[in-house]
Amino acid sequence: MTILDRIQGPRDLDALSLDERRALAAEIREFLIAEVAKTGGHLGPNLGVVELTIAMHRVFQSPRDPMVFDTGHQSYVHKILTGRRDFSELRQREGLAGYPQRSESEHDIVENSHASTSLSWADGISRAFAQTGQRDRTVVAVVGDGALTGGMTWEALNNITDDNARGLVIVVNDNGRSYAPTIGGMARFLNSVRTQDTYLDLQEGSEKLFSRLGKPGRSLYRGVRGGLHGFLSRASNNDHLFSNLDIKYLGPIDGHDLEAVEQTLRQAREYGRPALVHVITEKGRGYAPAENDEADQFHAIGQIDPGSGTPLSASSGRSWTSVFRDRIVELADQRPEIVGITAAMLAPTGLDRFAERHPDRVFDVGIAEQHAVTSAAGLAFGGLHPVFAVYATFMNRAVDQLIMDVALHRAGVTFVLDRSGVTGPDGASHNGVWDLAMLQIVPGIRISAPRDEATLNELLGEAVAINDGPTVVRYPKGAVGEDLPALRRTEDGVDVLREGSDVLFVTVGPMAQVALDAAAILEQHGITASVVDPRWVVPVADSVIDLAREHRLLISIEDGIRVGGVGTRIRQALRDAGVDTAVSELGTPDEFLPHASRSQLLADAGLTAEQIADDVAAQVRGTKIPVARPSADDPA
Amino acid sequence: MTILDRIQGPRDLDALSLDERRALAAEIREFLIAEVAKTGGHLGPNLGVVELTIAMHRVFQSPRDPMVFDTGHQSYVHKILTGRRDFSELRQREGLAGYPQRSESEHDIVENSHASTSLSWADGISRAFAQTGQRDRTVVAVVGDGALTGGMTWEALNNITDDNARGLVIVVNDNGRSYAPTIGGMARFLNSVRTQDTYLDLQEGSEKLFSRLGKPGRSLYRGVRGGLHGFLSRASNNDHLFSNLDIKYLGPIDGHDLEAVEQTLRQAREYGRPALVHVITEKGRGYAPAENDEADQFHAIGQIDPGSGTPLSASSGRSWTSVFRDRIVELADQRPEIVGITAAMLAPTGLDRFAERHPDRVFDVGIAEQHAVTSAAGLAFGGLHPVFAVYATFMNRAVDQLIMDVALHRAGVTFVLDRSGVTGPDGASHNGVWDLAMLQIVPGIRISAPRDEATLNELLGEAVAINDGPTVVRYPKGAVGEDLPALRRTEDGVDVLREGSDVLFVTVGPMAQVALDAAAILEQHGITASVVDPRWVVPVADSVIDLAREHRLLISIEDGIRVGGVGTRIRQALRDAGVDTAVSELGTPDEFLPHASRSQLLADAGLTAEQIADDVAAQVRGTKIPVARPSADDPA
Repeated sequence: MTILDRIQGPRDLDALSLDERRALAAEIREFLIAEVAKTGGHLGPNLGVVELTIAMHRVFQSPRDPMVFDTGHQSYVHKILTGRRDFSELRQREGLAGYPQRSESEHDIVENSHASTSLSWADGISRAFAQTGQRDRTVVAVVGDGALTGGMTWEALNNITDDNARGLVIVVNDNGRSYAPTIGGMARFLNSVRTQDTYLDLQEGSEKLFSRLGKPGRSLYRGVRGGLHGFLSRASNNDHLFSNLDIKYLGPIDGHDLEAVEQTLRQAREYGRPALVHVITEKGRGYAPAENDEADQFHAIGQIDPGSGTPLSASSGRSWTSVFRDRIVELADQRPEIVGITAAMLAPTGLDRFAERHPDRVFDVGIAEQHAVTSAAGLAFGGLHPVFAVYATFMNRAVDQLIMDVALHRAGVTFVLDRSGVTGPDGASHNGVWDLAMLQIVPGIRISAPRDEATLNELLGEAVAINDGPTVVRYPKGAVGEDLPALRRTEDGVDVLREGSDVLFVTVGPMAQVALDAAAILEQHGITASVVDPRWVVPVADSVIDLAREHRLLISIEDGIRVGGVGTRIRQALRDAGVDTAVSELGTPDEFLPHASRSQLLADAGLTAEQIADDVAAQVRGTKIPVARPSADDPA
Repeated sequence: MTILDRIQGPRDLDALSLDERRALAAEIREFLIAEVAKTGGHLGPNLGVVELTIAMHRVFQSPRDPMVFDTGHQSYVHKILTGRRDFSELRQREGLAGYPQRSESEHDIVENSHASTSLSWADGISRAFAQTGQRDRTVVAVVGDGALTGGMTWEALNNITDDNARGLVIVVNDNGRSYAPTIGGMARFLNSVRTQDTYLDLQEGSEKLFSRLGKPGRSLYRGVRGGLHGFLSRASNNDHLFSNLDIKYLGPIDGHDLEAVEQTLRQAREYGRPALVHVITEKGRGYAPAENDEADQFHAIGQIDPGSGTPLSASSGRSWTSVFRDRIVELADQRPEIVGITAAMLAPTGLDRFAERHPDRVFDVGIAEQHAVTSAAGLAFGGLHPVFAVYATFMNRAVDQLIMDVALHRAGVTFVLDRSGVTGPDGASHNGVWDLAMLQIVPGIRISAPRDEATLNELLGEAVAINDGPTVVRYPKGAVGEDLPALRRTEDGVDVLREGSDVLFVTVGPMAQVALDAAAILEQHGITASVVDPRWVVPVADSVIDLAREHRLLISIEDGIRVGGVGTRIRQALRDAGVDTAVSELGTPDEFLPHASRSQLLADAGLTAEQIADDVAAQVRGTKIPVARPSADDPA
């Protein structure tokens, strides 16, 4: 029986000796590598927090003491220690979620996987505990150094002060990386802390740590001028990143030294007021292929061979991201005014080749979407054309800046939204299903959705040539399908992919394929359908309105939420033009989607060719078509 | 002829002696007090920056050197110095805008009046200038200490480093206040800088300043350990708020000492890399009624008697805000779990009485809407019911947090959106016209809109009793009208205000009055209309669908954008229920609205009783009603 087998819940850690805990850490690493290799998932971040998580669950009593994981992709060890060891269906429908999830366990608190929110959560929870007399409870927030570049952490730190007694421990999990090395002035500062002599000494072990710093319980509390100042301060007290923010600072601590981390967390807990523990960890720790991977240290992987770390599955085809990666380089070569912006996701968004080729023209602003958008407006004012490449779900964080800085000032900025629409395995908060509804209400915006590689190449070129307002190019996660050639293109740029007389499908991006398949089914049952891809879905093209006049029923299909979606805009445009063709808007439901595959979730939403054909037939002639529906459990 | 009369543009300042500039400052103050007293507007902030603005226009060459004003309400002096002296119609249709406006002058750059954006703008513009060879241009950003509490400034500062040569000067206009005294750890730090001996010495005059600090041009550049570190650092070099962020720091400087400010700005400009100038000013400076007003120092005023500062106009009735102010106190007295949150706008949002009565239950988080929302989710998790009172336009800044932290976690948080819909005089970026479209796409949200005082009292009570998800209560700026009693209330809470048979008006909040008036007009022409106020507009109540069945035409009226508005949701709900009643959604157009009165802008959008009656008659029987329309120039 392994030690891990004895851990059914966090209290089972209490009886373990230091040696047993060290052995447990090794077993957990082995478990993680073996399990995540089979399913894919976030490996590197979890290998980095094994000792930290064990120490947290030794010192704090979850769920009495709530643990908040910023971004949440580093919560696998927490799941293991809280009785969740079935990783066989990680991130799959009904399987273990890749992020904390309240429905899984009372030990999970925050499901939001967007960065930089944990300090605000912890501030709120700890204030509420203090106010409601729950003074025996301490809130622990674990935040990465990358997430500290997000403005929310600054807002939170400005509110987390020493002015009242409450149990709040912030653990800065400092591995010098978000997805990639963390950038900016703060990162340079953290780097100087990590590499200074003081810290190198600390790494040699906890005994030396404590002999150097004096008796635990007192001397780790650093004070400046008699106060309790200093955040991420140096041991020498000469430099303070956030002096006067009134947060107790403890550290830096070697995050792989179980005893040192426990000791420090215990001190922070006993302090009874907000305290920050600065822990230095290594992403991918203990797994050579990850440690040796300078690019992202196995941040998120697919299935791999656990020994070598080599990806197992043959590529499922060229990804949308890689099409963008190549095309933006072509365009940047041609147009010197194009610059790229990323919020700490250079490679994941596909801006890496552009940055290699033109290093002075791509800006990584940190996990700072708001700054990315407003500084883009400034870059445009100064004569450049910025391309902000971002996952659609993170664009929600800078809508105000898009409206007030980019659109109001008619700044020529292109937003490239990767992972738009339904994404799947990462769960509710990674879905990009809000982008169309949220962005279509921005005055003057132009939104395009390529249906294939050819149209992505084309639309990106069109977008970067528009310099009098915001443009959007949005595409989903995964592999781009075969090119879908048009029968003809209207004068205002709408592609007609199929012509029929009864029904008009107006599709967004790759939903064109679904409509074509639905049209083929309908034709077998005597209903003919046209399929058009407007390419630019906002504003509504005149020829879409003209085509609508010639059909009895218009079906819009988008892989985003139906409420407030672009379908509603098409209908308003028809009504304004006096066209009374009936309109059905198809999209995803007005709810949070569970983790599952993209195809499963689209099927749940009725967005398969078969279901659409059924529903259209019912509308056109009052009866459904008896078509075979794919099983919702089929993980295509 | 006054000196002011000689200033047609900023270059006319070049020839003025120091004495003349001081006289000019006095003349500008006199002008501001006299003019703003007549029209209303932002007085206090502008009185505080007279010398600073004169100095900026002496040292920098606008528009070659772009000036970016954070929030923009402190740009009146800038307007005066750039040839705009007709303040007679300030903030009125076709009159001078209350904020910078590009269409007014080439000297205006940023129109966004939301706080904390200027550093990002300046970062982008200065990078673009450096990249495109416009090296003779320096960007100047003026940001208040209050705006520094917003996370965007942290994101920007993390990107504004000393690593490349570019002209970028950040002026921190530190008056210790946003609308009210700035709070939080950073504010305490700034306060300690302001009140220390060093600064008190500096205030005695520029001669002493320079004799103390050494020869200008060298010694004001503070360095830490040979580097160029320190942001908002003390003269003593002992404390650094942002050490290692690599921004040159100069200050603190007495912002009313023309010579000292000019000298320092000149040095910052000549540095050629990012530099920050810390200027201490007094809001309301030189105007006794403002200086003596501890509440907000005449931040924004209506018409006043210029001598005494007494408001001139009799109150136009009780404001929506004041109804909320009283009601939230009643509810807080009854329910100990209710806590209030404001983003630096305690009095303007009406949380001030609650805070006076229960000081430990109202949290002012600074200008930090994102933190406000996420910490509210934390407060709710901890057992409280937070009420976040905020202007609707600023809610756009925290939509992601509303979706991912509050809604996904079904946190019982109430959002009270003041100034929702069309606001008017403050211009495009203060309008709350996006709230319904943006918030209705949040899964599980419940949105209410009171039509009068009675329903505001009622709905706020209902909202704070809901603890399993976000609730919204939204109302406009200005005076609440007479109570509009219902004929009856349906079981699911929909108020029927009038009953007819042809047309069904479904209204949002105070648009009920417009519908009642339209119905009265229609009746004179033989068309009868029902008017219902759902009170809770999202989700759509079943009885609205039932009522729709009984009418030929449903007209939804909202004072927000029509694209993606709640009208589209009502139509989808009807379609889902198989109800084929025609629907027309009325709302504001998909564009930015110019500054004008609320009634003018509603008339422009066709949202008057007369225009609506006309349009409805046309739809019902193909002809318009010849009704008298109000003049669009009537500033009702």
